[in-house]
Amino acid sequence: MIVLGIDPGSRITGYGVIEITAGTQRVLDYGAVRPQGKDHALRLAQIHAAVTQVLVDTQPDACAIEMPVYAQNAQSMLKLGRAQAAAMLAALNRQVPVVEYTPKEVKKSVTGNGNATKAQVWYMIKKMLALEEDRGLDAADALAVGLCHAHRLGSGHAAKGGKSWASFVRDNPDRVRP
Amino acid sequence: MIVLGIDPGSRITGYGVIEITAGTQRVLDYGAVRPQGKDHALRLAQIHAAVTQVLVDTQPDACAIEMPVYAQNAQSMLKLGRAQAAAMLAALNRQVPVVEYTPKEVKKSVTGNGNATKAQVWYMIKKMLALEEDRGLDAADALAVGLCHAHRLGSGHAAKGGKSWASFVRDNPDRVRP
Repeated sequence: MIVLGIDPGSRITGYGVIEITAGTQRVLDYGAVRPQGKDHALRLAQIHAAVTQVLVDTQPDACAIEMPVYAQNAQSMLKLGRAQAAAMLAALNRQVPVVEYTPKEVKKSVTGNGNATKAQVWYMIKKMLALEEDRGLDAADALAVGLCHAHRLGSGHAAKGGKSWASFVRDNPDRVRP
Repeated sequence: MIVLGIDPGSRITGYGVIEITAGTQRVLDYGAVRPQGKDHALRLAQIHAAVTQVLVDTQPDACAIEMPVYAQNAQSMLKLGRAQAAAMLAALNRQVPVVEYTPKEVKKSVTGNGNATKAQVWYMIKKMLALEEDRGLDAADALAVGLCHAHRLGSGHAAKGGKSWASFVRDNPDRVRP
């Protein structure tokens, strides 16, 4: 299966795509989206368009998103929520189910320690996925989220949810209209 | 011109569509979206789908969104940001430019008082738009945002931004890909 990991942010949104087959993990793509301009709506649209492009290129079966539990202040939290939604909706609009993990869950899954530093996460990710090129911490975090979901799936402890929008619409046709 | 006003919220997202012609204002549609279920991503997709349906039905020229500056706590702010993005992206994906107004700007525009109560806003909206049916405060707030944008456009003081996604893509073809 192919998992798209996303580490959303209003300034930088990291993404990483991992193909998981019996016993092996292969990175298909990873990098970061850096929206430009001052118009908030158009910045979101850039995240949405770029994540959609990654979905088109790599055809993942699932999308795992990092869901921080706090930010510096209320405005940062608002912007973070917007960036998350831009990425989530890109996946849902392409019928890719979305699951969420906290940073602690991701760190614990990848390093064994829920309080690991970013450097420790990067060290493990690099080793586990045989990465040679450093494409920034946000891309590394995104790969970590994807890897976390892959591990959880393998052990039967994946995050709940992850229903596709198509199946939701099929089961709830009345919920799609206002 | 036709303006879609949105008052986004993770529990209830109000919408109101106003057609403005020389000297007259006519409400085309108003109501509220109440996403169901516990899956956060699917709740966002419901907001996105319902707002898209309103856009398809009423073909607005612009979308004005209420942008609160604080919420009860960080998690509320995150959820609010997500709901905002779901509505904004619905508009942008249909090439409808998005502008944002603070609650104070909306209240001031509609009632003349930036600190007006919800009841005062509702009273003015009802009177100005000759509404007979109360469809909830969120729908009324959404109409207020739409009316605020219409007033501002009329007086040449509309919120900045409001570029369509199509024109952004045309001017920045390299920003659409990751």
